[in-house]
Amino acid sequence: MGIDPGSRITGYGIVGSERKGIKYIHHGEIKSKRSDPLSECLKRIYDGLVDTIQTYSPDAIAIEDIFYGKNIKSLVTLGHVRGAAILAAAHRTVPVFEYTPLEVKQAVVGYGRAEKIQVQKMVTAILNLHKIPPTDASDALAIAICHTNYMKVLPV
Amino acid sequence: MGIDPGSRITGYGIVGSERKGIKYIHHGEIKSKRSDPLSECLKRIYDGLVDTIQTYSPDAIAIEDIFYGKNIKSLVTLGHVRGAAILAAAHRTVPVFEYTPLEVKQAVVGYGRAEKIQVQKMVTAILNLHKIPPTDASDALAIAICHTNYMKVLPV
Repeated sequence: MGIDPGSRITGYGIVGSERKGIKYIHHGEIKSKRSDPLSECLKRIYDGLVDTIQTYSPDAIAIEDIFYGKNIKSLVTLGHVRGAAILAAAHRTVPVFEYTPLEVKQAVVGYGRAEKIQVQKMVTAILNLHKIPPTDASDALAIAICHTNYMKVLPV
Repeated sequence: MGIDPGSRITGYGIVGSERKGIKYIHHGEIKSKRSDPLSECLKRIYDGLVDTIQTYSPDAIAIEDIFYGKNIKSLVTLGHVRGAAILAAAHRTVPVFEYTPLEVKQAVVGYGRAEKIQVQKMVTAILNLHKIPPTDASDALAIAICHTNYMKVLPV
């Protein structure tokens, strides 16, 4: 299960590893209104992720590392959201793995500086989907694909 | 209940409002080792705070706002911890209030730029304690005192 945390939209995507490749299972987004208090946003994200983890019982959760290019206030808010997401995984005792945006793009597109749309198109192609999922869900699926690839490389 | 979130030590303090003044109820600290993974720290903080909230049923939770003077990485980690703390309050449906470090010092010492030790001494005096509580618990008690004072000023 991949998670792309965000204060407005948190995307999640679930894939399975098969002999033939990677199988699409599910994706979704948890949205908050700009007017919602932070505590409400965090609760919605945590509760939504816990529900999804309970339903799909993923073996692992992969989450994107913070990219320090944004402004400090956004980064700190993102920190709150990541905290809620990591806590959801910890409470369901699912191990958490972190990948940098560069690693995710490298794994999915083969090029660390790929554009967002290239990532979305590759996710759609790899998972054999009929249409491109929304941005944040695509990113979450990309993170899940990245983790699946890393696990294949490592000795079992 | 006041909370002073920190990645190494999260302090909490509980006070009660009485006619005669502010009454000390409880304080404590939740500690993490530097070697603990972030998910473990967040879980310990969240679980510890939920336990305390369940035991003492506070009317409100006051938490210190982020002071943006530190380095970005520490601020983002602090964001994760604050996220866990705010989530603990939200899950027990206790309203959360935020105060800047300046407001807390102003409320307790009467001077926004007071030193840490001055805050600790004033907390000890206001709550009539026999000894100074540890730094993070003192800060949490200071935040709780700050909130109690603000509530008194507001019309009921």
